[in-house]
Amino acid sequence: MTSSASHSPEAPEAAGLVDFRTRPADYRHWRLSVAGSVATLTMDVDEQGGRWPGYELKLNSYDLGVDLELYDAVQRLRFEHPRVRAVVLTSGKNTVFCAGANIRMLAAAPHPAKVNFCKFTNETRNAIEDAASCSDQHYLAAVNGAASGGGYELALACERILLIDDRSSTVSLPEVPLLGVLPGTGGLTRLVDKRRVRRDLADYFTTKAEGIGGPKAVRWRLVDEVVPRTRWDEVVAERAAELAGRSHRPADATGIELSPLAKARTARRIEYSFLSAELDPDRGLVELTVRGPDADPPGSLEQVHRQGAEFWPLAMTRQLDDVILDLRTNAPELGSWVIRTRGDPGQVLGYDQLLLDGAEDWLVNEILHYLKRTLKRLDVTGRSLFALIEPGSCFAGSLLELALAADRSYQLAGVFTEEDPDAEPATVTIGGMNLGALPMGNGLSRLQTRFAGDDAAVAELVKRAGEPLAAEQAEQLGLVTFAPDDLDWAAEIRIALEERASFSPDALTGMEANYRFAGPETLETKIFGRLSAWQNWIFYRPNASGPDGALRRFGTGRRADFDRNRV
Amino acid sequence: MTSSASHSPEAPEAAGLVDFRTRPADYRHWRLSVAGSVATLTMDVDEQGGRWPGYELKLNSYDLGVDLELYDAVQRLRFEHPRVRAVVLTSGKNTVFCAGANIRMLAAAPHPAKVNFCKFTNETRNAIEDAASCSDQHYLAAVNGAASGGGYELALACERILLIDDRSSTVSLPEVPLLGVLPGTGGLTRLVDKRRVRRDLADYFTTKAEGIGGPKAVRWRLVDEVVPRTRWDEVVAERAAELAGRSHRPADATGIELSPLAKARTARRIEYSFLSAELDPDRGLVELTVRGPDADPPGSLEQVHRQGAEFWPLAMTRQLDDVILDLRTNAPELGSWVIRTRGDPGQVLGYDQLLLDGAEDWLVNEILHYLKRTLKRLDVTGRSLFALIEPGSCFAGSLLELALAADRSYQLAGVFTEEDPDAEPATVTIGGMNLGALPMGNGLSRLQTRFAGDDAAVAELVKRAGEPLAAEQAEQLGLVTFAPDDLDWAAEIRIALEERASFSPDALTGMEANYRFAGPETLETKIFGRLSAWQNWIFYRPNASGPDGALRRFGTGRRADFDRNRV
Repeated sequence: MTSSASHSPEAPEAAGLVDFRTRPADYRHWRLSVAGSVATLTMDVDEQGGRWPGYELKLNSYDLGVDLELYDAVQRLRFEHPRVRAVVLTSGKNTVFCAGANIRMLAAAPHPAKVNFCKFTNETRNAIEDAASCSDQHYLAAVNGAASGGGYELALACERILLIDDRSSTVSLPEVPLLGVLPGTGGLTRLVDKRRVRRDLADYFTTKAEGIGGPKAVRWRLVDEVVPRTRWDEVVAERAAELAGRSHRPADATGIELSPLAKARTARRIEYSFLSAELDPDRGLVELTVRGPDADPPGSLEQVHRQGAEFWPLAMTRQLDDVILDLRTNAPELGSWVIRTRGDPGQVLGYDQLLLDGAEDWLVNEILHYLKRTLKRLDVTGRSLFALIEPGSCFAGSLLELALAADRSYQLAGVFTEEDPDAEPATVTIGGMNLGALPMGNGLSRLQTRFAGDDAAVAELVKRAGEPLAAEQAEQLGLVTFAPDDLDWAAEIRIALEERASFSPDALTGMEANYRFAGPETLETKIFGRLSAWQNWIFYRPNASGPDGALRRFGTGRRADFDRNRV
Repeated sequence: MTSSASHSPEAPEAAGLVDFRTRPADYRHWRLSVAGSVATLTMDVDEQGGRWPGYELKLNSYDLGVDLELYDAVQRLRFEHPRVRAVVLTSGKNTVFCAGANIRMLAAAPHPAKVNFCKFTNETRNAIEDAASCSDQHYLAAVNGAASGGGYELALACERILLIDDRSSTVSLPEVPLLGVLPGTGGLTRLVDKRRVRRDLADYFTTKAEGIGGPKAVRWRLVDEVVPRTRWDEVVAERAAELAGRSHRPADATGIELSPLAKARTARRIEYSFLSAELDPDRGLVELTVRGPDADPPGSLEQVHRQGAEFWPLAMTRQLDDVILDLRTNAPELGSWVIRTRGDPGQVLGYDQLLLDGAEDWLVNEILHYLKRTLKRLDVTGRSLFALIEPGSCFAGSLLELALAADRSYQLAGVFTEEDPDAEPATVTIGGMNLGALPMGNGLSRLQTRFAGDDAAVAELVKRAGEPLAAEQAEQLGLVTFAPDDLDWAAEIRIALEERASFSPDALTGMEANYRFAGPETLETKIFGRLSAWQNWIFYRPNASGPDGALRRFGTGRRADFDRNRV
């Protein structure tokens, strides 16, 4: 395994590529234990275990290395522990729950690394909420010490928050007063839009570095309950049992193992069983190919369970998830992702139908929601996404979502007459998966978002479900952007990709983030739209990240030197 | 009139303060003509009439000086020309409609000036849409030449867009490919969320610098109609007549004159008849005092019309509007605005009732919507807003909105025992104006937004309408943030303001922009939230504004030199 461009805060090459694959036995910062229907996820960060050199992870502060273990645990709780109905998220330290993102790490990280880190952190927190809403697996934050900044934001992602009442532990968002940045991993949004904290109280709280504890924290809705130390363990157990008791998860299910994900990685190529990625620094792009199933779908749900992590939809989704995280983190200089598929559309639709028919099954439900979350990850990825629909492809149903998630799609009209004159022309096929099973962050399907407000166009498309659509039809129905023929194809694609690579990466990121989310807004779209965009700006300003800015001066004993002009 | 801190792009002091007050006789860039129910607003920018030195306003490009005339015209059309039902917005140049914001001006402007300019431009475009939706006065963009960038965004704010079909005129958004910034004054949002342009087509269009004209522009919904030059005048007149014909505005109304706004301005003080502002650079803040009416409300709508611009609600709103624009533009270093009121709450409520009872009257309707728009301007102002509710104040009904718009409010419990022991304690009073007549950009009242989702709390407050609420009651009901007594008041306010002044102005701007808009999102909140936040970030990045960035390199014949890493 060789190292391509990386962007660690202090030692770009030395620390190598970030690998998001891990497993509980390898955790350095978390402990996962399961007892009946209640799991406990204990944060106990190894101070010396920072992902990059140059900082210590004191006070249960976290970096990407800590956060990717949390993501792994959240995933495994859903697939490997179907009997778990409530998860207690707590700290293994005395007097501190979690101090949030490590400041020295953040201060030293280049701008793209800051933004990418926050995005992943946000996605994991959304996954915690997704477990509750889509899987009836509920998180309880047992805040047994000070929770500040990202530590409190982590608690905000849980359904209930218990705070220990020891006359010193508080919850706080000290980013604005101490660091000159926002509580940008959901804090501002969840306070007012999830917990309904009044905006003026939220304003006061967010500028009060020492935070709020005790009964006032309950009165202001910052936490749900404060509990004396003497009754702490007992009440946490009670509340966890209550949460578990309200869940309707199956009592007798057996989890499947998320076995180690096989992956070959060089500087120019990433290869999994159903996905490959060619990294092309010369053209500034990645060519991704997702492969459809290599066999017909299993005939029964029992077989799905038996196949487990080898079941095509799950295997493919894990690979897609991993490649997105890998490329976002390890290849920021590759600004366009070109997405192709290879396979039999009929088989893809067959697997889709099996999932849709079996959605009552806990494992099938998990697979569907995991695919949904992974496609959402694509939606918020700061890269230009182009889908190329060529003969031999299988953009049908669940895999058609890749084309619908793309900023543009090109479908070849006819065939490549030189290369393969006898091929079947490429088709796209709408399936049940495109009609609501895989909603975007805005709550709508990608088809609905694409035709924002034009219900007639969507209705027309629904009628065509199951029908393989040739390029001209697909273009006319608005399902693909362009349908060039063999004569134009190569030049048109080449020019489009070269043009894209010549534009300002910042402007593209901003444009795509706006166009991908037409229609209604939700907590999620607010976090990735409004909140993250503000945070990106603030991160970039000298008032935060300049040599005299608050992030860089933090802990030096010197106050930040601000440009006082308001923007 | 002396000059305080200003931030013109090239000559900070020489060009002096920006004065937003103008009138048609003084326009350098626009012509306003009225014929029956149709007005024509002709953009004919004086190349030599730039607000600051260093650039020429070629090709009907605009700067703040051009834009403030447009704002004035939009206002006057509503108040002075009630019989106008349709407004044709067109160009006085040959072959060009409008080339958007002047690039040299933008490239030279400091970051805060860019952002402030875009905000004002956005507000004016929203006002054009507000005229249609709230006043039945409809805008038709008669695009009689190339409309690019902000020029096309201006057309997007109109209800209908006609494009001349001369085989060369196109509409375009070339910001991303040519300038490395976004079409940030509504362009991205209005394309997909207002005109329902498909996101992939919008993506293609927004990266195609030369734009799109002819029938394809109609097919893609970029314009409503293309019209051959030979039939241009005729069809524009027909479409304007159609728009006018659908309007229900009164046929026989007589406008009122928006007489020159009297204002005394020094570096330390701004004074109007009902409003004064003390600028305090030492403390980094402005103390604003809005005065209630000085007489009982007139007894009839006839008298309201006779009073015209002197009628208290209109006079006060004009002054508030002007002071917001003045301070935002001319005093960016004053980061907090402290808002007080002086007057008789009963009188304020009396005027409010007159407005609410007379809302069917065209002038009363205009005044209500103007107050609504002005309060929205406050909502999107990048300054910390503190309301101080003291004895002698009149935070009731319409003026209570000032406290509800504030980030925090403090109401004195009791009186200032040293200064005025016999005063009546301050009260706040909910009135009809607080219950929906003055919605925020998110479509909700400030009360609803404050108690996002807590309908019971709002219902409780509605029951107390008309009741003067003392500090303790108001605090308990959640109507004010804090209710300190005389002993604590001075220190608590002083510390809060000093603290605020010590924080990063950027972090405060981002925090406030998030907290002020809990609840649903709309076109407006998307523009000011998501789109503007992204644009602010992009504006600040070297890829746009650095010495080798696209904005600075534009027109030099040299390509921009980009940092290719995606963020």
